[in-house]
Amino acid sequence: MVDYDLRLLLERLRNEKPLVHNITNYVVMNFTANTLLAMGASPVMAHAKEEVEEMVSFASAFVINIGTLSEHWIESMLRAGRKANELGVPVILDPVGSGATSLRTKTFRQLVKELKLAVVRGNASEILSIASDAIKTKGVDAAHDPEQALETAREVAKEIDSVVAITGSVDLVTDGEKVIRCYNGHPLLGSVTGTGCAATTTIAAFAGVTKDPLEATSAGLAFFGLAGELAGAKVKSPGSFMISLLDALYEITPEEFLEKARLEEV
Amino acid sequence: MVDYDLRLLLERLRNEKPLVHNITNYVVMNFTANTLLAMGASPVMAHAKEEVEEMVSFASAFVINIGTLSEHWIESMLRAGRKANELGVPVILDPVGSGATSLRTKTFRQLVKELKLAVVRGNASEILSIASDAIKTKGVDAAHDPEQALETAREVAKEIDSVVAITGSVDLVTDGEKVIRCYNGHPLLGSVTGTGCAATTTIAAFAGVTKDPLEATSAGLAFFGLAGELAGAKVKSPGSFMISLLDALYEITPEEFLEKARLEEV
Amino acid sequence: MVDYDLRLLLERLRNEKPLVHNITNYVVMNFTANTLLAMGASPVMAHAKEEVEEMVSFASAFVINIGTLSEHWIESMLRAGRKANELGVPVILDPVGSGATSLRTKTFRQLVKELKLAVVRGNASEILSIASDAIKTKGVDAAHDPEQALETAREVAKEIDSVVAITGSVDLVTDGEKVIRCYNGHPLLGSVTGTGCAATTTIAAFAGVTKDPLEATSAGLAFFGLAGELAGAKVKSPGSFMISLLDALYEITPEEFLEKARLEEV
Repeated sequence: MVDYDLRLLLERLRNEKPLVHNITNYVVMNFTANTLLAMGASPVMAHAKEEVEEMVSFASAFVINIGTLSEHWIESMLRAGRKANELGVPVILDPVGSGATSLRTKTFRQLVKELKLAVVRGNASEILSIASDAIKTKGVDAAHDPEQALETAREVAKEIDSVVAITGSVDLVTDGEKVIRCYNGHPLLGSVTGTGCAATTTIAAFAGVTKDPLEATSAGLAFFGLAGELAGAKVKSPGSFMISLLDALYEITPEEFLEKARLEEV
Repeated sequence: MVDYDLRLLLERLRNEKPLVHNITNYVVMNFTANTLLAMGASPVMAHAKEEVEEMVSFASAFVINIGTLSEHWIESMLRAGRKANELGVPVILDPVGSGATSLRTKTFRQLVKELKLAVVRGNASEILSIASDAIKTKGVDAAHDPEQALETAREVAKEIDSVVAITGSVDLVTDGEKVIRCYNGHPLLGSVTGTGCAATTTIAAFAGVTKDPLEATSAGLAFFGLAGELAGAKVKSPGSFMISLLDALYEITPEEFLEKARLEEV
Repeated sequence: MVDYDLRLLLERLRNEKPLVHNITNYVVMNFTANTLLAMGASPVMAHAKEEVEEMVSFASAFVINIGTLSEHWIESMLRAGRKANELGVPVILDPVGSGATSLRTKTFRQLVKELKLAVVRGNASEILSIASDAIKTKGVDAAHDPEQALETAREVAKEIDSVVAITGSVDLVTDGEKVIRCYNGHPLLGSVTGTGCAATTTIAAFAGVTKDPLEATSAGLAFFGLAGELAGAKVKSPGSFMISLLDALYEITPEEFLEKARLEEV
């Protein structure tokens, strides 16, 4: 158990409807916006370098997602990120595909270097792509050994000075010191595109209502994973699941969230 | 009551399947295309400056939506818009986010100045962003006082020489003289991304089958709002609602449209 | 009947989860990715010229779709296509809108000239847009006379040295010699955007598990068409149909595929 007041956090989200500015990939823009609306937050997507600084200044949180990266978007990510840092708007990064191509790995490194990131969420190989070689070597074992993954996540968090979330069948969240496991989730999440990206934007929505990024990340992953569980209890195939997931994000009450979130400090 | 023959209008739409060319934002492209297909119209999305003039020449109506604007798309909007004006293809504008950033406000002004727009649809703050300062001052009150909003909409319509639709819990449509209220709609429309944009493209589809932009706008908003009502009568959460809305756009018969449209001339 | 082992083919697809790299249009990116995930394949979307060669080298098949073409994407299509050719990764082309604008027709010609295409899938007018004038003349009749369409498809396949699929109420697949008809499908597929594009990516997924492009194309169209039939047997409107279609792609077993595929060698 963790001592976060998840009930209060969701109540606050529903009342304050935090505006989340996303510079994200083409594939998931629609689903990301619908995820935020369904849970009670407000989405905005804007990527033009001429307006991102103005737009991010209205936002409660800012998401950078490199899923369909091209060179001329990087400048917008950096401009908006710097403005967000200046204003204290939390920046949440989803390094989609980092490690797969050098453009993405290079961009992940650049964003980590030039911006203060509140949270980075990815799968194990994406997160490992930023680590120093010493950590990466251990990370190779991490895929097989959960305890090793935990140690690796912690070292990466220290190295990049952000909360790090490695999501998988069990999610790990750490600031380099504390480590929290999240057990909410459902296998069908892997059969719908953009659910990882949607988990990231859910973290951002919670980061819009708490100043503690470890709390926001844990709450976001538990909330999104719980919606997956509730959807998976109703339907068995990915089309219906995607729709039922959006419904669940809307339907979960603060009480239900508190009751069914499965977060554990390690 | 208004004296539009809504039954005939929907029959014509279903028979003629008007082609609507959209230069719209990334978030809503898929939902916009599905909205048009579901109601019986034909969508095309094309934004390259090399082809937009050719593409718009096949179209019965042309939509410009600035929801994920970037500089190099503006030239395409203008090129296609000028060609549409030359050919008599009605141009429908959705100034998403105008007023929020200067890029968008500036682009809205430029489009109004350089093109003959048949219809502009937005929420109150988007529409007010184009108004002269005298109107804007009154517009501040408009959010609270429906009668003031009505007066403001009328003055903006005169100022920009287009039919103007301000959508909200009740929609207002005006050409600067006549004013029509549309009472169709449902609160869940606010929990699905792109429903405003979809209402705009629905107006465009009707503009493809009548030469009267006031009629097209009123019919489009009533039709889309009615689909929302029918969806909201079946389901209670936004994922299912989005799907049920597409179903309703397909299922509404000309008779049902005539019977359930709630348009009133003020 | 054809002598393909469809049961084995689908089993292989489900086991191997072939990675399909798509450079496709904005409208259908999300639906394309969900189509691949639902059937059991793995999608990746990447279009930046800096990374497409790296990305395609991981892929089992590569899709080029020109549905929202702009000039600077063409270079990426060519780069990735050349790399795919070099590595023996099959390239599947969907020439959306070719024939409608000169940008698209010109691009279709350029792709055919510069790349070795395994399969080209389009509707009759898209396919005809590439043909020499002699074939086009006959193609005018093809819309009315199925036997003429068959002859035209065969001649285009020879001319461009690819498997060609002309999809419609009955689909035709040919390598210029053999001709296969596919009878699976459902009229509601025409009321959902991106179903043609999704059929193309389904062909690509099968091309990731068989080296015979005629087999991959026939299997892909039969599988996607069958999913449409099963969805259409459950629901009657396009929103629900789109979701039910994704469900069916996930639910069809190898046995059911073998039993219900309706392919016929002419």
